[in-house]
Amino acid sequence: MIYADNAATTKMSEKAINTMVAMMNETYGNPSSLYEVGQKAKEVLEDARKQIAEKINADPKEIYFTSGGSEADNQAILSAAKLGEKDGKKHIVSSVFEHHAVLHTLERLKKEGFEITLVEVHDDGLVRPEEVEAALRDDTCLVTIMYANNEIGTIQPIKEIGEICRKRNILFHTDAVQAIGHVPIDVEKENIDMLSASAHKFHGPKGVGFLYVKRGIRLTNLIEGGAQERGKRAGTENVPGIAAMAVALEDACRNIEKNAKNVGEKRDKLIKALGEIPHSALNGDSTKRLYGNVSFCFEGIEGESLLLLLDDKGIQASSGSACTSGSLDPSHVMLAIGRPHEVAHGSLRLSIGDDITDKDVDYIVDSVKEVVEYLRGISPVWGDLKAGNREYIL
Amino acid sequence: MIYADNAATTKMSEKAINTMVAMMNETYGNPSSLYEVGQKAKEVLEDARKQIAEKINADPKEIYFTSGGSEADNQAILSAAKLGEKDGKKHIVSSVFEHHAVLHTLERLKKEGFEITLVEVHDDGLVRPEEVEAALRDDTCLVTIMYANNEIGTIQPIKEIGEICRKRNILFHTDAVQAIGHVPIDVEKENIDMLSASAHKFHGPKGVGFLYVKRGIRLTNLIEGGAQERGKRAGTENVPGIAAMAVALEDACRNIEKNAKNVGEKRDKLIKALGEIPHSALNGDSTKRLYGNVSFCFEGIEGESLLLLLDDKGIQASSGSACTSGSLDPSHVMLAIGRPHEVAHGSLRLSIGDDITDKDVDYIVDSVKEVVEYLRGISPVWGDLKAGNREYIL
Repeated sequence: MIYADNAATTKMSEKAINTMVAMMNETYGNPSSLYEVGQKAKEVLEDARKQIAEKINADPKEIYFTSGGSEADNQAILSAAKLGEKDGKKHIVSSVFEHHAVLHTLERLKKEGFEITLVEVHDDGLVRPEEVEAALRDDTCLVTIMYANNEIGTIQPIKEIGEICRKRNILFHTDAVQAIGHVPIDVEKENIDMLSASAHKFHGPKGVGFLYVKRGIRLTNLIEGGAQERGKRAGTENVPGIAAMAVALEDACRNIEKNAKNVGEKRDKLIKALGEIPHSALNGDSTKRLYGNVSFCFEGIEGESLLLLLDDKGIQASSGSACTSGSLDPSHVMLAIGRPHEVAHGSLRLSIGDDITDKDVDYIVDSVKEVVEYLRGISPVWGDLKAGNREYIL
Repeated sequence: MIYADNAATTKMSEKAINTMVAMMNETYGNPSSLYEVGQKAKEVLEDARKQIAEKINADPKEIYFTSGGSEADNQAILSAAKLGEKDGKKHIVSSVFEHHAVLHTLERLKKEGFEITLVEVHDDGLVRPEEVEAALRDDTCLVTIMYANNEIGTIQPIKEIGEICRKRNILFHTDAVQAIGHVPIDVEKENIDMLSASAHKFHGPKGVGFLYVKRGIRLTNLIEGGAQERGKRAGTENVPGIAAMAVALEDACRNIEKNAKNVGEKRDKLIKALGEIPHSALNGDSTKRLYGNVSFCFEGIEGESLLLLLDDKGIQASSGSACTSGSLDPSHVMLAIGRPHEVAHGSLRLSIGDDITDKDVDYIVDSVKEVVEYLRGISPVWGDLKAGNREYIL
């Protein structure tokens, strides 16, 4: 079996699992408790906070643990909106191809009277800093642009956008769920005010993530209750999950360079070989992308059938985001980069991990070629294309 | 070591840990993915939902997984408020001794123009259904009363309150975080519309819980994003945590009767023996309380010193709620049941588990007696009391 859907979720590392088990067995106290087993849990919690902060060049006090990336996105955006509202600033800039945790939160704010400007994404899957700048207004309270796209893996010019926001004194949030642990991130150098992360995308556990918030920015609670997380996120802390997340992030960050090289080579090999399939196209820039992301559109086929047949061959991939699978609408990301509906449906996302071998790559290439050919053979659309009754798009 | 703070958090059961580990190793897929390992995760998720629903006589479609009890409380209350608002009903009834996840959410709603009536709690630690009824108004949209109090363990007349609400067609939510797995719960028979639960209170993992919502009641999202949990709670599902929660709840519910008898006997023994300490008092009714909860006030001492000295003796207990420890204010629960400030500070909560032995009980009794005596010996307040310069309260 080749698991090539690491952008949907990763398998936990052995080390992360072991950490979790050790914590569940031994450090089961409530970090708010005064006695020893509680204080030990508190120590674990604060060590994890420190360890995680270091990885992005933040201060431990700037890290808030959450139940995952979606919660972090929601809290960051709602907090910035609340701050903006106080100053009479109710305009937010984002992009058309953000994750739904961002887009749906913005839709909610729109109902509450906020104005939202979504900048376009170019064919290369990249947002242009100058277009973000052009969208800014005197009443802009927040810019939120994802670090790397979850479907096509393109890495956005975060530092440049951050610089623009910093100059204008506008809060800048980035959903870094896909990027962290895969790309070196420095919140200071990149002018990031808020950043969302999720552990299960870097071989940590599901159900845990964090929000980085630059000191001085007042968070609004999403979850009210106890005084955990300096009063900003109620609920008994998931100590085992948080400790495992720290361990997983440590490993992921240590291996970024190595993976960028080794996995990146496999990615490039896949891109080259799959690009040889006629009437196919890589989605997004070929180099400004996550080292594990290979995203293609194949004309004349349905992505879902492609996935199921690849699954039969032991290859687990995705058509786009796992969060929206099951939906019949074409991916908003594919439409954002200019793929027409009929092509957007035929997308394939392979998100490979560091366990991938050359043999795997060859097997994936052969399998995709075979399945695409088979599906085109039974596709009426492909028949029309071949007969000249329709024009090729790709 | 005697862990007597199960109301703060429990040690995970071996079975729950094993389930979690198996899931982390094998069923790591994203439940939204179409391929086999994703669909397997989806199955695990739906099996857990069914298993949990059965335990409270609900339909699986009425269970929404959350990151814990606080999130569930927040979402339930905000959803009911949203529904009320639509009908011009902006009045909520609750009690003075709810958990902060409820009280702070109500405070937020107050700022948004809701009116909140908090019914009093009597000296026995119980809310009176007739007082809840008397508080109802034509514009009441929600009643939220906790199932069992987190500090003193008193079990509220939920069925009666539910009946009153049902008759008046008012939504009834109960924070059952302390009760579920310790008391048999039947949402149908008890007229409960919404119920919050947290896994780590019944030997399940931290960072996971659920919200029961009666069919037909429209939830408002707290976390926007992907279409998980029927579009009502975004974020990749914590499959290992959820599966472990189901296993833990299964075990907890199976053993309720046995624990109520065995652990209940130990509780009563503790209550009797600690009650012999002069100028002490049990907090809350002696029988209408959780089988594991023993809560006392001791005059003339500070709860915090008591805890630290008990910790030295290998007994881990709490003064009240873990969520508010570290605060210098006396517990709102102690004040609610009529304990004056000077006594409220000297509270001790022992929340024992099913691993407790008769020997443990004896050791706890001896230790508490010794420590209380010692602390009183160095307490100026106690000196004043003994000298007749102050009047005893207890």
